[in-house]
Amino acid sequence: MPPPAVFRFGPLNIPLSQVFLVSKLSFALVNLKPVRPGHVLLAARRPVARFNDLTHPEVVDLFLQAQRISKIVERITSAESLTLCIQDGAKAGQSVPHVHLHLIPRFEGDFANNDDIYDAMAHQPRVDNPNRSPRSPDDMAAEALRLRAEIGPSWDTQ
Amino acid sequence: MPPPAVFRFGPLNIPLSQVFLVSKLSFALVNLKPVRPGHVLLAARRPVARFNDLTHPEVVDLFLQAQRISKIVERITSAESLTLCIQDGAKAGQSVPHVHLHLIPRFEGDFANNDDIYDAMAHQPRVDNPNRSPRSPDDMAAEALRLRAEIGPSWDTQ
Repeated sequence: MPPPAVFRFGPLNIPLSQVFLVSKLSFALVNLKPVRPGHVLLAARRPVARFNDLTHPEVVDLFLQAQRISKIVERITSAESLTLCIQDGAKAGQSVPHVHLHLIPRFEGDFANNDDIYDAMAHQPRVDNPNRSPRSPDDMAAEALRLRAEIGPSWDTQ
Repeated sequence: MPPPAVFRFGPLNIPLSQVFLVSKLSFALVNLKPVRPGHVLLAARRPVARFNDLTHPEVVDLFLQAQRISKIVERITSAESLTLCIQDGAKAGQSVPHVHLHLIPRFEGDFANNDDIYDAMAHQPRVDNPNRSPRSPDDMAAEALRLRAEIGPSWDTQ
């Protein structure tokens, strides 16, 4: 079966061009406003808000795919570390009410204070953040294509 | 088989009294210096540093246990959200080189800025942080007992 043309992400519809991995229960997408180049998201395909709303198979799939993606992100960005984070609920800074994991490449000295990254992340992916311009659809599609090429066959839509 | 008397956590030995869940491949522990009451850690039993060092069964076990714990932490702290985070490598703020997930209960207005929590987390569990006093072994053991009681039988050491 071909992958769907759009993926639901909270109230948003993410076009397939911005998606670089589709598994049975998860999908990975590039960012409109990454806090750093290479910052990507991995979401459950079923649109539920909280980590505890996931079934066991959804949890398993999400984190096995996370491991697969983390390797690629670290390699293609030449990162030395990664921040892996779920903002699980609005009070934790979650802005799209749909379970998703942030994967962010990290480098020595990338933020003045190591954890300033989270301030940046808190404002992502809010499209109304005045401090960052949104990327063009072409930029996002190009990044997704590069990630797809690295990951290999990844359209598991059975 | 009874659980081990101590659990290796990077260079540290964590006494069983501070552990509240043991599964085949993971263990959960209370914190010497939690950023908020209820902030706990879940680690792989095998002492490896990076998320990508985990085997598939270790990834699966870690996150299924995370889901189990997250429910309990949220309930007993009456939290409204949770921060779930792996600092995967030194450049991401990881201070103990042993894969572990932070689970932190979150509340409306718990930090002046929502993501100040990460600054706090960055200094945990460094025992030399001058801004927080370490807890007593009795406090930590009491918290572990309370969590064990909520979780139920959780000494899967086969």
